[in-house]
Amino acid sequence: MYLISERLNGQFKSVGRALDERDAQVIATIALRQVQFGADAIDLNIGLGRDDEADAMAWFVDAVQGAVDVPLSIDTPKPEVMEAGMAMLKRPGIMNSVMADPKKMARLFPIAKKHGCDVICLCMDESGVPNDAEKRSENAMLLLATAMEHEIEPDKLLFDPLVMPCYSAQDQAPKVLEAVMQFQHLTDPSPRTVCGLSNLSSGARERSLLNRTFLAMMAASGLTAAICDVEDRELVQAAKASDVVLNKTLYAHDFLKTG
Amino acid sequence: MYLISERLNGQFKSVGRALDERDAQVIATIALRQVQFGADAIDLNIGLGRDDEADAMAWFVDAVQGAVDVPLSIDTPKPEVMEAGMAMLKRPGIMNSVMADPKKMARLFPIAKKHGCDVICLCMDESGVPNDAEKRSENAMLLLATAMEHEIEPDKLLFDPLVMPCYSAQDQAPKVLEAVMQFQHLTDPSPRTVCGLSNLSSGARERSLLNRTFLAMMAASGLTAAICDVEDRELVQAAKASDVVLNKTLYAHDFLKTG
Repeated sequence: MYLISERLNGQFKSVGRALDERDAQVIATIALRQVQFGADAIDLNIGLGRDDEADAMAWFVDAVQGAVDVPLSIDTPKPEVMEAGMAMLKRPGIMNSVMADPKKMARLFPIAKKHGCDVICLCMDESGVPNDAEKRSENAMLLLATAMEHEIEPDKLLFDPLVMPCYSAQDQAPKVLEAVMQFQHLTDPSPRTVCGLSNLSSGARERSLLNRTFLAMMAASGLTAAICDVEDRELVQAAKASDVVLNKTLYAHDFLKTG
Repeated sequence: MYLISERLNGQFKSVGRALDERDAQVIATIALRQVQFGADAIDLNIGLGRDDEADAMAWFVDAVQGAVDVPLSIDTPKPEVMEAGMAMLKRPGIMNSVMADPKKMARLFPIAKKHGCDVICLCMDESGVPNDAEKRSENAMLLLATAMEHEIEPDKLLFDPLVMPCYSAQDQAPKVLEAVMQFQHLTDPSPRTVCGLSNLSSGARERSLLNRTFLAMMAASGLTAAICDVEDRELVQAAKASDVVLNKTLYAHDFLKTG
């Protein structure tokens, strides 16, 4: 399981303040901690309500790159902010995200092509998050076809079925699992898939337990990456155990210490 | 998830000694603990190397029934020991188990019919445990068809795909998950399914972590029951979280305290 840290998000107070004050030391400390806890990549989201979004994202990327050397995911719905972040990347990163809306795809896929980045494809469209697995798959197919028209190869794409909170939409998690299984048949070999895991437990108690239980299920359905709280040790252990159980990494007595 | 305690097994020293000495107090204490920890049923296995197997099983059932009032699973490959255990049951229990071997089915299904018990159907035959999901499903179909010939309804059956240790047969867990998914199509509504969960981690480190990670995956594949260590609190919590995530029990903030 490829783990993308969710922690560098401006909605966390410490990150928001560091973005306001352009305090690179605070950002570096958090970024380093993500890698120490096992993050394979880090998602960067500047949060809401900022006047200088493009500048803030460019500075954010620079600050994180000064501290760690892992791929970064530029997390914004705004093309100009995406472009500002992508332009600062020293190595190809991840575009987070494009949705199955023709206007957004027309604007964002060229940026992805230009920068050679991976692309997280949200399997929703302008009408919102689908209620079932089938519509999620339809959106995935449209995203795949449109990416290919833009000469972006399928192996650059990560399909996101959109995890919903079980607290308020309890029927959705089984449909999300089904969607990930359906995504396996989109391409051959199966495409990469990703989700924003913590959304599952938004508003709920026992968040860590719910998240890691669902991560194991998602892994069995074919999920290959998760944007999640890598500082949650039990979650990372569940990810490693999932890799062993699913025969993705060879069993070794010290499997928790490796990878 | 219906949890069947694995703890009353003669291979545990304390249980073996209590069976030798016919010490009902020791058995009662362990049985009560299983129910307190959340067991819905208890599996009774007298272990190996005993001269008085039928007598021991009959006494075992009586001792446990004196302490707790949950369904009991009579766990033995020997028809005469099965019969002795079944004859003592105050309420219909579970036959553990029948395999897809014509001779064994011919001997055991009539006992199950006579006692009106549920039947755990091991999806293996006289040649051993299958290497793939398809052969497990074939065995399941033979067990289903033969049970029906004996006028045992499908809702009495629990299909067991046979979990193997990931330490020595790491490729098997994904195949077991696939088998449980295939079993869903055996009958309409889908049949009940069960597994001996702890076998997954036999010989491995981090047994509890591996077991509960696999339990979540199995639940998502459609597993409805597990023979497991109910004294493992984290395992029981994972089972409850799985029920919530899969929308089998309604989310409530205190979901860990209920059910």
